[in-house]
Amino acid sequence: MATGMTELAAWVASIEDLQRAGAVLQWDQSTLMPPLGAAQRAEQLATLEQIAHERLTSARTGELLEAAESELDGTAPDSIAARKVAKTRRNYEKRRRVPAELAVARAKAASQGYEAWVAARAADDFSMFAPALERNYALTREYIACFDGHYDDPYDVVLDDFAPSMKTADAARLLTEMRDQLVPLISELRGREVDVAPLHVDYPVPGQRRVVAEVLRWMGFDERSWRLDDTIHPFEASFSVTDVRLTTRFAQEYFPMALYGSMHECGHGLYESGIAPELERTPLGSIDSSAMHESQSRLWENLVGRSRAFSHVLTPLLVNHSGGALDGLTSEAQFRAVNRVQPSPIRVEADETTYGLHIVLRFELEQALLAGELDVADLPGVWNERMRSYLGVEVAADSEGVLQDVHWSEGLVGYFPTYAIGNLIAGQLWGAVHADILDLDDQLAAGELAGLREWLREKVHRHGSRYSDNELLEQVVGAPIEVAPFISYLKAKLSDVYGLELA
Amino acid sequence: MATGMTELAAWVASIEDLQRAGAVLQWDQSTLMPPLGAAQRAEQLATLEQIAHERLTSARTGELLEAAESELDGTAPDSIAARKVAKTRRNYEKRRRVPAELAVARAKAASQGYEAWVAARAADDFSMFAPALERNYALTREYIACFDGHYDDPYDVVLDDFAPSMKTADAARLLTEMRDQLVPLISELRGREVDVAPLHVDYPVPGQRRVVAEVLRWMGFDERSWRLDDTIHPFEASFSVTDVRLTTRFAQEYFPMALYGSMHECGHGLYESGIAPELERTPLGSIDSSAMHESQSRLWENLVGRSRAFSHVLTPLLVNHSGGALDGLTSEAQFRAVNRVQPSPIRVEADETTYGLHIVLRFELEQALLAGELDVADLPGVWNERMRSYLGVEVAADSEGVLQDVHWSEGLVGYFPTYAIGNLIAGQLWGAVHADILDLDDQLAAGELAGLREWLREKVHRHGSRYSDNELLEQVVGAPIEVAPFISYLKAKLSDVYGLELA
Repeated sequence: MATGMTELAAWVASIEDLQRAGAVLQWDQSTLMPPLGAAQRAEQLATLEQIAHERLTSARTGELLEAAESELDGTAPDSIAARKVAKTRRNYEKRRRVPAELAVARAKAASQGYEAWVAARAADDFSMFAPALERNYALTREYIACFDGHYDDPYDVVLDDFAPSMKTADAARLLTEMRDQLVPLISELRGREVDVAPLHVDYPVPGQRRVVAEVLRWMGFDERSWRLDDTIHPFEASFSVTDVRLTTRFAQEYFPMALYGSMHECGHGLYESGIAPELERTPLGSIDSSAMHESQSRLWENLVGRSRAFSHVLTPLLVNHSGGALDGLTSEAQFRAVNRVQPSPIRVEADETTYGLHIVLRFELEQALLAGELDVADLPGVWNERMRSYLGVEVAADSEGVLQDVHWSEGLVGYFPTYAIGNLIAGQLWGAVHADILDLDDQLAAGELAGLREWLREKVHRHGSRYSDNELLEQVVGAPIEVAPFISYLKAKLSDVYGLELA
Repeated sequence: MATGMTELAAWVASIEDLQRAGAVLQWDQSTLMPPLGAAQRAEQLATLEQIAHERLTSARTGELLEAAESELDGTAPDSIAARKVAKTRRNYEKRRRVPAELAVARAKAASQGYEAWVAARAADDFSMFAPALERNYALTREYIACFDGHYDDPYDVVLDDFAPSMKTADAARLLTEMRDQLVPLISELRGREVDVAPLHVDYPVPGQRRVVAEVLRWMGFDERSWRLDDTIHPFEASFSVTDVRLTTRFAQEYFPMALYGSMHECGHGLYESGIAPELERTPLGSIDSSAMHESQSRLWENLVGRSRAFSHVLTPLLVNHSGGALDGLTSEAQFRAVNRVQPSPIRVEADETTYGLHIVLRFELEQALLAGELDVADLPGVWNERMRSYLGVEVAADSEGVLQDVHWSEGLVGYFPTYAIGNLIAGQLWGAVHADILDLDDQLAAGELAGLREWLREKVHRHGSRYSDNELLEQVVGAPIEVAPFISYLKAKLSDVYGLELA
């Protein structure tokens, strides 16, 4: 007999399918699609988005929700069943505020903005991108207006899309505390030299591909359910727990880009592949929190990939496939090189320490653009000025400045802060896993990454979106999101790298 | 002001988008998807199919159709506007007869059947595939039952899906006439030798890839709007007129498979890319007639690719990239080798002449399976027996027999006859284009394929599905589908190859 609950599940599953289908089309567009396919692809994506939107916001969803909610009576509110319904209710209430035409317009603008960004970045010409960015911000303002003042800060609305339930004030407090810790740390390390020459050797791309393949295999990449493809701006997408797509970008003159980029995306992929299969095609089966997602990618990229322990197994692998370019490189030298603190213009190439300030900058500019306090035309100038004042960095070209990131081209406003918050969460989890697995460093040094992966699967991944970030952290580390553990981790590592006692 | 016509257009465009999105997912599944992604992919495809079906068969479609039809009053019935509406009416009436659950079940069975077929073929084990085939035929019978006797022959229903408006009796008449011409021709050539050793050299796959890339470039392949990828069973898909995907399969020991397979799929691709852009996202913008589609693919594969004229430019290319394996090969020898008449077990490797009998065999077996006169369990035996009696060929393994084709795995019953009918149409078009372009053979000999391509675009491609096959042929060659031109073409070429006077 069909109950409200089972009917709701089938109805919501169809919406999840539409979203996954859209993800396939987007993945294809970013990796393989011939460029002239873009116009019709935008139509196709817009249609999928429109139908998903119509279904989610339909009267039928409302009726099924009421029926399911009445059947829940007495069920524990944090049970899977109750959380599925609650998550659908949340999505329904949020999306109902947004007219279908606006949702369609945002999807179309995202697709077209991406194409404009690719061209503008290649031509190093911000003016080619400015109209698309204007349009995205105008649509974002329209989107926020749909929430009719139901927020403390207009930015809350977009932040909530990527860090559910987080307030702008909380994010600002965390980012400010982080910034106030990072600035003196960076200052203390300024002028201290670390040899990074080994990172800038001529490393043949085929060799890099072999290194990446091996490291991903250690992490859990399995050809039966994963793929790795090339793209311009790397990302991860998953179409089911057993269909995970990683993308990466290779530069012959700077191998860390592909290596650490791939570990980063694989961290995302492990999260998606670790979701309990029974949550597939339910609203708990896709991860809402970009912050928690980023905690996974950055944990693998930085806390594992740049650790002293992992350097023992990574360095010989790097040397082996370098075609002689890295002959004689020691683990010690590798470990020190990849942890140098050095302000630089590109976020994705930034070290762990300065990275946070790249995010603070974007967080501030997003708020200013949104509030209309900053014009798009003035953005490159303000960007470059702030890079100078925060990081002491000169931006030589917009393609290495304001055009470096894909996010705004696709209308993703409110996303950037989740990178920094992800770092904070990673710091918290790193403490907890070391308390649980006493020989974790020995495992990492041997390239045995399964222990860590399974711990994360058990504590984090399998739950999908069942818990909020703070709920989950309370369970795993006994506290909500905090800055201190990340800073402690960082200071301990940098003390080791620089031979100092950073307090 | 929105009229019935414009509202219908927007509504139908969304259905086209869903179908194109489904095509992207299917293409991905057949080329790139990790194997464990299959289960969830089937769900996603089923959902897209279900929603497209629901939309097409909805009361809204009926209302918009009536409004649009009333606005058509006085419009010429073969105008684009009238044909768009008429085609939607046809699709609506056809699909309304089929319950959504059945459409979903067929889509799901197709996706699962494909996976079963891949595994069964790899293992050379028909029993691994039999349950999926049973299921597909059972669902096909259910599908036919929806048409409630509105046909002369139950097979009419499935044939109409691939050759709109064609009757089984007409197809049988054409195929019988063709068979009766081919059998004595094959008989007359039996025992006559042609040296095919040059086709069976060890030809490195990288060299084959370069040959294929060059030939496709001559045909019109453009990286801005085309892709070529590897797959198990080659096919062509297009997601817009400027996003065309070809797939192919390489065998180091038999280069004609990739070469002619690629020309075949590129012929399909040229058809799709030649559709007038104003027909995109309308029901006239996708080709309904597999017969006309096959006429294009087979025209390029055989009438161009295996012509004496084209051998003059193809042979040096083949020699150049063969790594020495084809040193000394002459155009004459190449032309003769690729036109040898030699019964063999594999349809896609069959020569043009025996090919038709492979189709007659499948056409008969499909009808017998459908009528319940043949059990799936008995299929391999009957297949092998009929290969012996029609072509004198022994089938060594089911993977080279009943498991060789993908079609039945995806529930495509009624498709095969369109291959043979496509050959017939190609023969008719070949006569007409030679009458219009007097130096066509000189152009082909120089690798100049644009004249032919543009002729086909003008006469055939740009119309999309505006005309029925017979209407279009009446315009272009002044007659409906006929057998004689194809047979004349074949006899002329084989007379040349074998140094005979075949009458």
